Amino acid sequence: MEQKRFFLKEADLPKQWYNIQADMVNKPMPLLNPATKQPIKAEDLYPLFAQELSRQELNQTDRWIDIPEKVQEMYRYYRSTPLVRAYGLEKAIGTPANIYFKNESVSPVGSHKLNSALAQAYYCKQEGVTNVTTETGAGQWGAALSYAASLFGLEAAVYQVKISYEQKPYRRSIMQVFGAQVIPSPSMTTRAGKDILTRDPNHQGSLGTAISEAVELARMTPNCKYTLGSVLSHVSLHQTVIGLEAEKQMEMAGEYPDMVIACFGGGSNFGGISFPFMRHKILEGKKTRFIAAEPASCPKLTKGKFEYDFGDETGYTPLLPMFTLGHNFKPANIHAGGLRYHGAGVIVSQLLKDGLMEAVDINQLESFKAGCLFAKAEGIIPAPESCHAIAATIREAIKCKEAGEKKTILFNLSGHGLVDMGAYDQYLAGNLVDYTL
Amino acid sequence: MEQKRFFLKEADLPKQWYNIQADMVNKPMPLLNPATKQPIKAEDLYPLFAQELSRQELNQTDRWIDIPEKVQEMYRYYRSTPLVRAYGLEKAIGTPANIYFKNESVSPVGSHKLNSALAQAYYCKQEGVTNVTTETGAGQWGAALSYAASLFGLEAAVYQVKISYEQKPYRRSIMQVFGAQVIPSPSMTTRAGKDILTRDPNHQGSLGTAISEAVELARMTPNCKYTLGSVLSHVSLHQTVIGLEAEKQMEMAGEYPDMVIACFGGGSNFGGISFPFMRHKILEGKKTRFIAAEPASCPKLTKGKFEYDFGDETGYTPLLPMFTLGHNFKPANIHAGGLRYHGAGVIVSQLLKDGLMEAVDINQLESFKAGCLFAKAEGIIPAPESCHAIAATIREAIKCKEAGEKKTILFNLSGHGLVDMGAYDQYLAGNLVDYTL
Repeated sequence: MEQKRFFLKEADLPKQWYNIQADMVNKPMPLLNPATKQPIKAEDLYPLFAQELSRQELNQTDRWIDIPEKVQEMYRYYRSTPLVRAYGLEKAIGTPANIYFKNESVSPVGSHKLNSALAQAYYCKQEGVTNVTTETGAGQWGAALSYAASLFGLEAAVYQVKISYEQKPYRRSIMQVFGAQVIPSPSMTTRAGKDILTRDPNHQGSLGTAISEAVELARMTPNCKYTLGSVLSHVSLHQTVIGLEAEKQMEMAGEYPDMVIACFGGGSNFGGISFPFMRHKILEGKKTRFIAAEPASCPKLTKGKFEYDFGDETGYTPLLPMFTLGHNFKPANIHAGGLRYHGAGVIVSQLLKDGLMEAVDINQLESFKAGCLFAKAEGIIPAPESCHAIAATIREAIKCKEAGEKKTILFNLSGHGLVDMGAYDQYLAGNLVDYTL
Repeated sequence: MEQKRFFLKEADLPKQWYNIQADMVNKPMPLLNPATKQPIKAEDLYPLFAQELSRQELNQTDRWIDIPEKVQEMYRYYRSTPLVRAYGLEKAIGTPANIYFKNESVSPVGSHKLNSALAQAYYCKQEGVTNVTTETGAGQWGAALSYAASLFGLEAAVYQVKISYEQKPYRRSIMQVFGAQVIPSPSMTTRAGKDILTRDPNHQGSLGTAISEAVELARMTPNCKYTLGSVLSHVSLHQTVIGLEAEKQMEMAGEYPDMVIACFGGGSNFGGISFPFMRHKILEGKKTRFIAAEPASCPKLTKGKFEYDFGDETGYTPLLPMFTLGHNFKPANIHAGGLRYHGAGVIVSQLLKDGLMEAVDINQLESFKAGCLFAKAEGIIPAPESCHAIAATIREAIKCKEAGEKKTILFNLSGHGLVDMGAYDQYLAGNLVDYTL
């Protein structure tokens, strides 16, 4: 009997997150204070983030970071997520490749984002914070943070990118059911928002804009911290539970991936599934390929420049050494709202520079075509973001078919697309277009 | 360490469905041919249903029915579903009761409906059928049947109740992604639909109406069978995988339920989780209470009459001995579309008559209040139908609190409500009302 799904026993769940910075030969370059151009220290981040998160952000020495007991307890509500052998997709492609996916869409809020939201809310609560702010694109992160905040009794204010707020009204409702306040961004509630709207009254918003607003609100509100759903190193750190579980689950399946694939917005789900496997590449010379799938309309990894840039549109954040399209880049209105970000995390940027991973860009139509094939084969409607990972997987599986090679591919299904059916509707009606940069 | 979730090993998954009819002291009364008033035989159903399903429908002797290998294989993609200890909900209520729920919302299509859709599509395919028709309310069944049909290479036509078609456009899109044809009912594509629209051009549709249309289309189409998502005995039979798994999972948790609770439309998810536990009540005298939670606006169990009635509005089906509000009953436009049905399955009707189970009616506002409490506590947005089961659970948990009794409650979370966020929106905005009959 072929096994379809692999779960870990609760006792086997990860008790520590994996910090790849400790194992990197070339560490990420320092974050810089934009005024002094001096390297940022953890203390410099305390006004913005919980202190423990600030320390995790800059930690380049400890390979393993303990997951607090309380966070482990909450992980047990939905983790391990299943590792699934995608027999249906293999058959639909007719590939000799063995395809597995880690199904993060079964988390309560529907995506991997909860893994970091719980950790961030926990540390904020521990340090006496009462309010949190954040940005969200498609709303996966916003929903996760809203739920985590509600669990820890924190007030949450979420700036949702305007185009997504309008495209995906149900995601806003989900955040509201969890008790969060949701504001479309750019808004008139912040200086940053007002300035952007003055320059461009029809600005559709981007993650960079929403970050500026959330950061500003956090600064102006007593006892309030800002939280971020991707890009930063501590976010990828929390997401390594995905890869650590997948490592054990692949072992249960008796396989080791030749390729690990994930979609790419700021890097958190990509880092989450990749880094634990990448340590075997760094330390033991394993040959695994790591493929980040980004949208062709927002291709920072394949067409951006590696340079110091701001993480937000207004320039409130430290300068980050990263692949970027420029912090004023205005991404096209693709439905994969979570991938509409101009930059890449500093760890991933360094790894790409060092040739430890690669990137591909995927057009919107190819991504939805892949998503529909997957849906019909596996029964799960994937998030438009995750469709990029599926499209990259299908490309590789077709190469295997052409070459007659039986490779093992692992991809991350970062979330479901049930709240994105409007996008599928438009795709099926032939109303979607590509926006290649 | 307290365990939150219980899964079965693939090897421990049920290999047979449980047919409660074999153990019932008073068997359900026969289905009658409306013209001759003679009991229906399996052969009489062959024109409408796959032959094996027709035989299952009337089987009152075999306690266990083998699950075909192929269906078992497909179950393994998503089963077992987790049994979850609802620590969050218990805390939110402040109850000494131990609350568990069986989480069917993690099935690929988001509800328990797939358990029967796979079986029905399998038997149709086996018997050379090429097309299937069905009705759907909220769309949970329609989505399940569409996916199952796509897996077996069958063409699917789904009549969706018009009010749900309009309230829940995303569910229609999901069916279309799976390749089904979706028609709002009442429609002009059938005689039954035309007659209803002639009488009442603004008819909002009901499951009874949609069944008439789907039955008629099946009759008029070569090589086409009709499939049904609830009410019928073979549907509950397939759904017993829920309760059979839950039985073993409760054993893993070291508990046995004092109460088993499920929402009630036609009876398939209620029967699915209840019947395996009920056999211990019938055979061994266990004291478990079984509670069906129906909407106050469509209360066939609490306010209907036990009599012979048609299963559809037009009168195409056999006469069923059941609790019913009358086949011309027009349910109010509540958002729990899956519960907008005038009758109850014949097995459940007999069990209720014999006092083996009980029923409660829940108002729309109470159901959404319960759903929001559950969402904040457990992170899962429940389907409006499932909110009725949660509301009934909360009522019982509050009774436990008042009496200081530590009872064990098991309820079925039949599906998620991610495609029903419009309803939650309206609830949060104070725009929903109660419709008590």
